[in-house]
Amino acid sequence: MAKYEKREKAIDLSHHLSDLSRAREVSPLKGLARYFGKPGVISLSGGMPSADYFPYDNVSANILAPDSFALDSNSSSVSWFWRLFGSSTKTQPITVPKYPTKPDQVNLATSLQYGTSKGLPQLVDFIKEFVEDVFQPAYSDATVLLQTGNTDAWSRTVLTLCNRGEMFLTEEWTYPSAIASSHPYGISPASVKMDGEGMRSDDLRQVLASWNEEERGAKRPHLLYTVPIGQNPSGATMGLQRKKEIYDICVEYDIIIVEDDPYYFLQEGPYHLKFEREARSSSTTDTESFFANLAPSYLRIDYQGRVIRLDTFSKTIAPGSRLGWFTCSPLIAERFERHGETTAQAPCGFGQALITQLLITWGQKNWARWLHGLAVEYTHRRNFLIDSLAEEFHIRKSIGTQDVWNGLEVYDAYLKPIQNTSGDISEKFDIGTKMFSFVPPTSGMFVWIQLHFDNFPSLKDDDDDKTYEMKLWEALAEEGLLIAPGWFFSAHVDQAPPKKVGNFRIAFSFGDEETMKKSTAIIGKVFREFFKDH
Amino acid sequence: MAKYEKREKAIDLSHHLSDLSRAREVSPLKGLARYFGKPGVISLSGGMPSADYFPYDNVSANILAPDSFALDSNSSSVSWFWRLFGSSTKTQPITVPKYPTKPDQVNLATSLQYGTSKGLPQLVDFIKEFVEDVFQPAYSDATVLLQTGNTDAWSRTVLTLCNRGEMFLTEEWTYPSAIASSHPYGISPASVKMDGEGMRSDDLRQVLASWNEEERGAKRPHLLYTVPIGQNPSGATMGLQRKKEIYDICVEYDIIIVEDDPYYFLQEGPYHLKFEREARSSSTTDTESFFANLAPSYLRIDYQGRVIRLDTFSKTIAPGSRLGWFTCSPLIAERFERHGETTAQAPCGFGQALITQLLITWGQKNWARWLHGLAVEYTHRRNFLIDSLAEEFHIRKSIGTQDVWNGLEVYDAYLKPIQNTSGDISEKFDIGTKMFSFVPPTSGMFVWIQLHFDNFPSLKDDDDDKTYEMKLWEALAEEGLLIAPGWFFSAHVDQAPPKKVGNFRIAFSFGDEETMKKSTAIIGKVFREFFKDH
Repeated sequence: MAKYEKREKAIDLSHHLSDLSRAREVSPLKGLARYFGKPGVISLSGGMPSADYFPYDNVSANILAPDSFALDSNSSSVSWFWRLFGSSTKTQPITVPKYPTKPDQVNLATSLQYGTSKGLPQLVDFIKEFVEDVFQPAYSDATVLLQTGNTDAWSRTVLTLCNRGEMFLTEEWTYPSAIASSHPYGISPASVKMDGEGMRSDDLRQVLASWNEEERGAKRPHLLYTVPIGQNPSGATMGLQRKKEIYDICVEYDIIIVEDDPYYFLQEGPYHLKFEREARSSSTTDTESFFANLAPSYLRIDYQGRVIRLDTFSKTIAPGSRLGWFTCSPLIAERFERHGETTAQAPCGFGQALITQLLITWGQKNWARWLHGLAVEYTHRRNFLIDSLAEEFHIRKSIGTQDVWNGLEVYDAYLKPIQNTSGDISEKFDIGTKMFSFVPPTSGMFVWIQLHFDNFPSLKDDDDDKTYEMKLWEALAEEGLLIAPGWFFSAHVDQAPPKKVGNFRIAFSFGDEETMKKSTAIIGKVFREFFKDH
Repeated sequence: MAKYEKREKAIDLSHHLSDLSRAREVSPLKGLARYFGKPGVISLSGGMPSADYFPYDNVSANILAPDSFALDSNSSSVSWFWRLFGSSTKTQPITVPKYPTKPDQVNLATSLQYGTSKGLPQLVDFIKEFVEDVFQPAYSDATVLLQTGNTDAWSRTVLTLCNRGEMFLTEEWTYPSAIASSHPYGISPASVKMDGEGMRSDDLRQVLASWNEEERGAKRPHLLYTVPIGQNPSGATMGLQRKKEIYDICVEYDIIIVEDDPYYFLQEGPYHLKFEREARSSSTTDTESFFANLAPSYLRIDYQGRVIRLDTFSKTIAPGSRLGWFTCSPLIAERFERHGETTAQAPCGFGQALITQLLITWGQKNWARWLHGLAVEYTHRRNFLIDSLAEEFHIRKSIGTQDVWNGLEVYDAYLKPIQNTSGDISEKFDIGTKMFSFVPPTSGMFVWIQLHFDNFPSLKDDDDDKTYEMKLWEALAEEGLLIAPGWFFSAHVDQAPPKKVGNFRIAFSFGDEETMKKSTAIIGKVFREFFKDH
């Protein structure tokens, strides 16, 4: 493990920069930097309005208590929904004044002014400490730079590192916006096979070793995009060993890793069926153990500074924050900063001020407690959705033999006969036929289900253009349930969707218990009808 | 004028789109749009967290009264600085709750969630009404789309309309970020000469008519970037007649006009020397007349929908808002929206919520009053800075004969002899020598001064690389004053700065009276020393 120990400095990766990024110039004003910020120096150089003209005298908020969400992750008798509402009255006021009344106080005169493209210093400091504590970068000058959400961060990364015509490596199923951001610039994905931990290291090596520039129409990629925790859409989570294997391959082939990790703090642990959970004693983990057990970030093993980590407040505070941060080598951070200066310039000052004041008020320890509470909430949600599916369908466990789930415990769903009808469904097809499968996710917001259209020979007769995935999706939509069609997440952008292979992504992040219950009932009803009719 | 009357619809300008913009695809989810937003439909499709997990129970603010700033624009006896402080205690509380308690109420559950890439509906509605009232677009389907500040808006515009290697038309002196945003993409400015109203229509025609593709290395531009009011850096403001001339040329040559207008509401009117103002009776204008007298936007005459107008809250609320809006044809707005979806997705929800609540609380009329009050404040600031220069130097008025100021009343500054010394300055050079000139701006935040190094023959001897502009700039900086060197604003990006031509841009937006007084004293001292030493 010696090579993963903390090094002095990130290596120079400037040969990875795109022509576009190289062309971004440092403002000539920077050349005059030695004159700026000196005490007593008057600046009438910028077009800054006086803070007296900001029409806000202060901005304030009532914030929830950091322990608003209980930590008992095994409970199933008490509804998480009610627990939440019972505690939401515990709030605390925070205020950001226009002008500071004590040193380093967050204030509107600064946060609503120009000149914070790196981010509010108090916020950057808080995040730095958090990053050092939680992700423990393996080199000493890892740099934190604010951004306006991971979609923008990835978009800036692609333009900073890739020229037109280049490809980047990614999971075969991935976040659609990651492709939508790069595709118009002529930069496209090269997919790597997945298993239950996400990207496979053996296939990554295979793809790189056998890369044929002529066949692919692009030189071998030097950028890898991955969502390693609660992968979108599959929900897969990657452990340390796999990350080391992938990292070592990236060192060998000189590849930069973009670790897009919005679901990092939603690590829920293994799922057990309701009756299995009830048989266990209720377990409450303390926050320190929760953090100690989190799958480590790539930063932890990044002794060369070739990881660009993207964090966002979208899932831990709110999506509308449009605020997150890069952690990466200083050289790349500097290029991101130049790019930022000519686009949004800086994240919104209202958001920065209110989030900074919340974090400072809570402190590192309470912020950790908040994240732990959220993880437990999402555990309840994940459990509730899968419990509901298990009530709607017969669930049998098997050991996966397919590519994606090889060796994992797979949940296979079969039709339940409808007891109180005349049993006409069982006349049409064997109720023992497997309809769909999934691996309960250990992180994130999604259950990714694989549909087994192949098991239903009558579906063969149909010969229109529509895939069965879309037909089934429309049948669900007509009944009032929208989930995400799997094909939208394919990294095989040039291929037509296969007719009889299909997946759905079901989010358990948003609905309350009643909504989820209704949803699984619709799934049950529509699946029964769909497979009966075809 | 018939052709400027309101038309049914913008013309189709899709042939202007860049290859990049054409490659931006509509999300496949849009194809399923008919299923979304139906009442009673459950969506578990997106990765949205429940609003219960947003740690803010509400967000609130104390906002200034919309009439915080007095409207008496001629007063010179009362300091604006004190008037401001005296009224800043008049505040009013506003609150944005997490969940709405009445229909259409601004709330955090919506504004902090995903799904607002066009902008909060209440904000877009307010802006639409304002745009219709104030700018009066000449076609009926002008579309409003939020953006994260005019720098980002321009950056998105360039990428939406220009391919690599293309050029855009702009004033010979311009906003440096406008060039910094486009330059790395291989898109560069073609400069058009200016006069006291900004861009010259005769030179625009000349540039276009004589465009030589081979010589220029680019096809004739189809995009024009202009800051027509309080132009940055020159402070020039363009009237209706000139805009019509330029618009007609753009129709003839099929050019899209980007009207970047951050200083639109800082229209201060003509400057008069202090003693001239004192001789006049104090004049207070009502807000309706103020708006009626504003120079019209290009939108007013845009009967074809070829204007993309960029508005920002940076100067009217605060720069840290990182919020503004496009007004343009629906076709181009749709392309901007696609671009937005793969970058910041949407402006920050905290900022949107707080600004929307402020605007709704004030209403259109009070918002107009606020803008009028700001314009009067900037008038005082402009007056104070120029009054101070007039105290520091001899000011003589002349009629401009040079290109930029041809026909305008120009203020020429001469050294004042230092009365209480032995008069050694006058031995070295004629105190009658003109040192710098300026035209008092009628809008915006800046005084643009032209330096007359040529008038001082002793400066010829120097033969190092540094321009006199930078030497004088450094001399000021050493004395503790930073202003903006003029060369930073040149659109002649490929040329070396001329040795003996120079300009400075002095901002009157930020400093208080004492600071401005100190600044002009430094300018006086340093100029005397500089021209004595050389």
